[in-house]
Order: sequence, then C-alpha cells, then structure tokens
Amino acid sequence: MGPGPSNPYPEVIEAFTRPVMGHLDGAFLDLLDETCDRLRAVFRTGNTLTFPVSGTGSAGMEAAFVNVVRTGDAVVVGVNGVFGERMCDVAARCGAEVVRVDADWGEPLDPQRILDAHPAPAVIAVVHAETSTGVRNDLAELGAAKGDALLLADCVTSLGGIDVRLDDWGVDIAYSGTQKCLGVPPGLAPVSVSPRAVERMRCRPQSWYFDMGMIADYVTGGGARAYHHTAPISMIYALHAGLGVVLDEGLEESHCRHQRCGDMLQDELEARGFSLAARAGARLPQITAVRVPESRLPPSMTEADVRRTLLDHYGIEIGGGLGPWAGQCWRIGSMGHTARRRNVTLVLAALDAVLG
Amino acid sequence: MGPGPSNPYPEVIEAFTRPVMGHLDGAFLDLLDETCDRLRAVFRTGNTLTFPVSGTGSAGMEAAFVNVVRTGDAVVVGVNGVFGERMCDVAARCGAEVVRVDADWGEPLDPQRILDAHPAPAVIAVVHAETSTGVRNDLAELGAAKGDALLLADCVTSLGGIDVRLDDWGVDIAYSGTQKCLGVPPGLAPVSVSPRAVERMRCRPQSWYFDMGMIADYVTGGGARAYHHTAPISMIYALHAGLGVVLDEGLEESHCRHQRCGDMLQDELEARGFSLAARAGARLPQITAVRVPESRLPPSMTEADVRRTLLDHYGIEIGGGLGPWAGQCWRIGSMGHTARRRNVTLVLAALDAVLG
Repeated sequence: MGPGPSNPYPEVIEAFTRPVMGHLDGAFLDLLDETCDRLRAVFRTGNTLTFPVSGTGSAGMEAAFVNVVRTGDAVVVGVNGVFGERMCDVAARCGAEVVRVDADWGEPLDPQRILDAHPAPAVIAVVHAETSTGVRNDLAELGAAKGDALLLADCVTSLGGIDVRLDDWGVDIAYSGTQKCLGVPPGLAPVSVSPRAVERMRCRPQSWYFDMGMIADYVTGGGARAYHHTAPISMIYALHAGLGVVLDEGLEESHCRHQRCGDMLQDELEARGFSLAARAGARLPQITAVRVPESRLPPSMTEADVRRTLLDHYGIEIGGGLGPWAGQCWRIGSMGHTARRRNVTLVLAALDAVLG
Repeated sequence: MGPGPSNPYPEVIEAFTRPVMGHLDGAFLDLLDETCDRLRAVFRTGNTLTFPVSGTGSAGMEAAFVNVVRTGDAVVVGVNGVFGERMCDVAARCGAEVVRVDADWGEPLDPQRILDAHPAPAVIAVVHAETSTGVRNDLAELGAAKGDALLLADCVTSLGGIDVRLDDWGVDIAYSGTQKCLGVPPGLAPVSVSPRAVERMRCRPQSWYFDMGMIADYVTGGGARAYHHTAPISMIYALHAGLGVVLDEGLEESHCRHQRCGDMLQDELEARGFSLAARAGARLPQITAVRVPESRLPPSMTEADVRRTLLDHYGIEIGGGLGPWAGQCWRIGSMGHTARRRNVTLVLAALDAVLG
C-alpha cells in the first residue's frame, strides 16, 4: 500500500508463466497489437501510435520529451511535486528552454498561470496525478487553451485509477507506468502520441532506444515489422493480462472502486485526527499523503520505525515522504488490485495498533 | 532456437510468481545486491558499478555510450554486423566523431586495424559476439593495447555462453542482455563499468533515465539508497534466478555445454552439406548463421516458408538473416536453457524432414 508498485492482479502473475515467444513471432505480434488496443481503451484515445515503451514510467517521460523537444524550444512545466521537477530535468537535457510554473506542494497547479507563462511554447507539460503529494492537476483546461503547443501529460499514477481522456482533453503525448492502478509489476511505460504530435516528432532524436519513429515501424508496422529492439516479451504478457482485468471489470467500475477506497481511507484518517497533505478538492483517491502525527508517535519511535513495524509485523508497505516532505509525510496507496476495502480496513487497523 | 529470446530456465519462470516488493524494501535491496554480485561473477569482474539497466540489451548499449561520450570525442567502432552498425548510430547521437572500421560480414574484426584507426580515441567499441553473423570478435588484444582509450564491449550474446573476462581483458564498459545465454526473458541489460570509466563518466549526460551517476546512488548506495526510478521488480527476480542457475551449474560448465551444442550443430550442418556463414575459427557456439540451401528448398517453398513450417509443425523458431543477409541466411541459436543436445537433435531432424 505504498505509492507503487502495487500488488499485481493474479491473472498478471499467471501470464508471466507463459512460454516466451520471439519478438517477430506472429502470435506474439497479435498479442502486442491487442495490448495496444487495450491501451487505447484505457487512455480513451484513437491514437495509432500507442504502445508500451520498454522501460519503467520514467522511461516513458524521457521518450515523450526526447521525441518532440528541439534545442531551444520553450517548454512550460507545471511543478508541484517530485515528478514535475523531474520533467524540468529531462526537458533541459533534451535542449529545452524550461519555463517552470510552481505551485506549493499539496496545492494543484493553476492552469491559467501555466497558459500565461510563455507566449508560444512548443510544449506544455504537466503531471496529472502527483505521486509525491497526492494532488490531481487539471488537464482539460490546458488542452482546451493550449493553442499551438503540444500538451504532454504524465499519467503514471492516474491511468486506471481516475478518468483519463486523452482525445476529449486534447492531450498530445501521454505516458504511464504499469505498477500503479493497472495492477502490473513495474517495467513498461505505456505511451500514446496524437497525430498532431507525430507530425512534429524529431527525425533522429538524441536517443536511439527511445526513437519513436523507429519503434513505430515495429509496433504499428502491420505485416512488415521492422526489428528495432527485442521487446520485453514476458512483461508484455503481464501488461496484456492486467489491461484485460481492468477492461473486464470496466474502466468506470475500476475508477469507482479506487474512489470508494480513497474516500474511505481519507475519511477515516481525518476522523482519527490525521491531517491530509493535499488540498481538499484536488485529492487523488489512489494515493493519499498524510502528515506524520508527531504527537502520536509512540515514545522512541520515529516515523520510519512506524513504517518498518507495519512492514515487519503486518506485511504492509506504506511510503515515506519525498523531497521536502521526507520525514513529514506518509504516502498510502490503494491502487490496482490493492484497491480493496479489506486492505484499507487493514492498514487503518494496523496504524491504530502501532500508534496505540 | 532463434537468435534470442531463448527459452527461460524453469527456475526463472517460478521467480516471476513471487510477491512484488517495493523498490526500497530492504528484502528487495538484498536481492538486488545479490543479483549484482552474481553479475560480477559472470562478467568476471570486481567492478563496483555492476547492475541491470532497466531496459533491454539495446538500452545497455545506449547507457554505455551516453555516460562516457562527450561531444566531439573520437569513438572507434568495429563493424562486422548489425550491432556494430547500431553502435555507430548510438555513438553519433551522443555527439561522437565516429571512426568506423569495417570487416566483411562473417569475418572477425582485425584488432590491429581498430587500434591503428585513430591516434587518441576516447572510446574503442566492439561487439564481442555478433548475433547477426555468428562471429566472435577478440577483446583481449584490444584491451592490452587500448592505451588511454576506454574499451566498450557489447556482450549481449556472449555472456553466459562463452568466456567473458572483463578484468583480465581490460574491458572498461560492458553491457549484456538477459534473453540469450543467461536463460531469462528480455527486459534487462546487465552492465559493468570499471573504476577508470567511472572517473570519466559525464556529469548530467543527455539521458536522465540512463544517468549512471544517479542510478549508482540507488544500486550501490548501501544503507542510504536514493530513489531514481522504480526498479522492474519481477524482472530482477527473474534475472536473480537465472544467474543462480548459471552459477549453480558453474560458469565453465555452462560454457562447455554451449560449446558442445554449437559444435554438434555446426558439424552436423556441414555434414549435410550446408555452408556456415561465419569464418571457421571465429564461430560462436551459441548462434550459428548458415546459408540458405537454395537448391534444397522444396518446390514452391521460400526460406521464410521453411522457417514458418518449423514453427507451425515442430514448435521450433529459427531466425532469418538481417540486413544484407536477409533471405540469404538462417540463424540458429542454442542459448541458455535451450542449449541442450535434445534441441539440437530436434532442429536437425526437423530440418531434414522439411527439406526432404
């Protein structure tokens, strides 16, 4: 119940046991095609270029920026947590002139300030669900008013847990991770790129491994697949299975389940006198940042001791704070297969027992 | 029995079924440390910076170049197959002045020509086992005479299948893949970097995801692990298990098994009148390129039809040729768990049956 990886769905673990096929085997390519179709369904997009990047969520971030940013491009980045900070670093390494728009940690970004930050940015980049703070940032308002800019969104923690609508919201490039609300172990980064962004993709970007023009010839090549790199076969089986579980349950129902668990956790924490770190009205259900209740820690226990006790005595992982919130916050996730009433009930009862 | 992925060891598949731990969980970090120890054993190195990059073998190639190449650096690349070509592309995108030294496909590289190609290269880069041709290139002679240059080696197909001795041979940066002779599905790229190369690593390379300075704070951080990106937990379980199988068998014995299978396959192919594509004396045991016997193809069957028949009727995958050898060669692998006498016997018998 940390900020991810979450527990995988049982069907995902079963998928890992399938025989490993070759990356050019027709049966594998059919499964890859179906995986990409399933990604289009959860991203709610018709984008042809939708596929899993062969790396973890941060690889998705790098693949997103490296294919569209040119040296000197103005890239406006909204920053209200670790992953917005990371976007600035990645964009700068791609040669961007980064224009950052900060909000306090725990507060959502103000879309108008982002839109006003530069007269003609090449890219506007925002984290949809900030894993470091539990805050949801609005994408639709940015998409509606982005003008000529490309809208780039980090959907690592949002996809499968809350509504993500790339086409309705005008998101041009989105990436995610498998280990949050999709219920799959970490290792792949689903990405989706709009036709508008495909037109602006760089020819021969500084990264060969993340060169989407070359990768597209493999993943969307139809009958004539050009080998780029060996696909991570077993991880793709796992993603295919996890997406199957999500879509069988129904995307809306998956979102509702995450919402119910998040509401229960947050209501119960507040009822116990805990202080939630994210602004009310911008809280994510799937990841809850709660301030460490210093006055309630047992004598001689630090916040890290509490987390260790939860892990050692109850088999429950919760996360510590990152960056300025290290030692100040806990982060409790209820994502994917982990987003169950029984798990929320257990973590609350275990916290009660440890804090006394 | 293609050029990889090979069939995983059963212990590897079992490892996939373990519960997913967090990437900062002490028990996971112990397993990661042990995985890195095992990598040091198979690479035969004492290099502290030895770990699995979170991507496939080509991610290892990119990570290797991007951390040591600076704009304008002379990088000498030996090219006698697809993966030497790829090195040129990757190095150029890192800003290198690439000096390529070609040998004909099927021929090994001439170390002296590589050493003579530039008076003071920053990096000399060579593929140890060319998967596209089945040729072994010598590393020891380059390491002994490299001077001030760093020696960078692609060990994707060599590691676990033939002798690899980073320290004895003076290799400074090596990368590999999991899906060849280690008997693990694709998805990770083991890398190892000598202290000499660590000293020359770039601060803030153009890639964030492959920034080894940052990754080192996580993988070799001891008690204080700095989160970089979420490690691909289940793939690391799999690699840990695969390396365990290799080391339990014994590295020498694993090499001998690959050699016996390769010798048997190559002798039997030649006894049948097939022509091997790699120069005698430089042939790898784990991957055999054999010229398509045009005169022996059944009427109205192409070489691709033969491969498809092997797959559909016998459950055997063999690879086609790449680049200039497309349609000209087959590539038959006997790697990792697949390197068994029974499999070699089967592929030969199946070829006999299909070719008539």
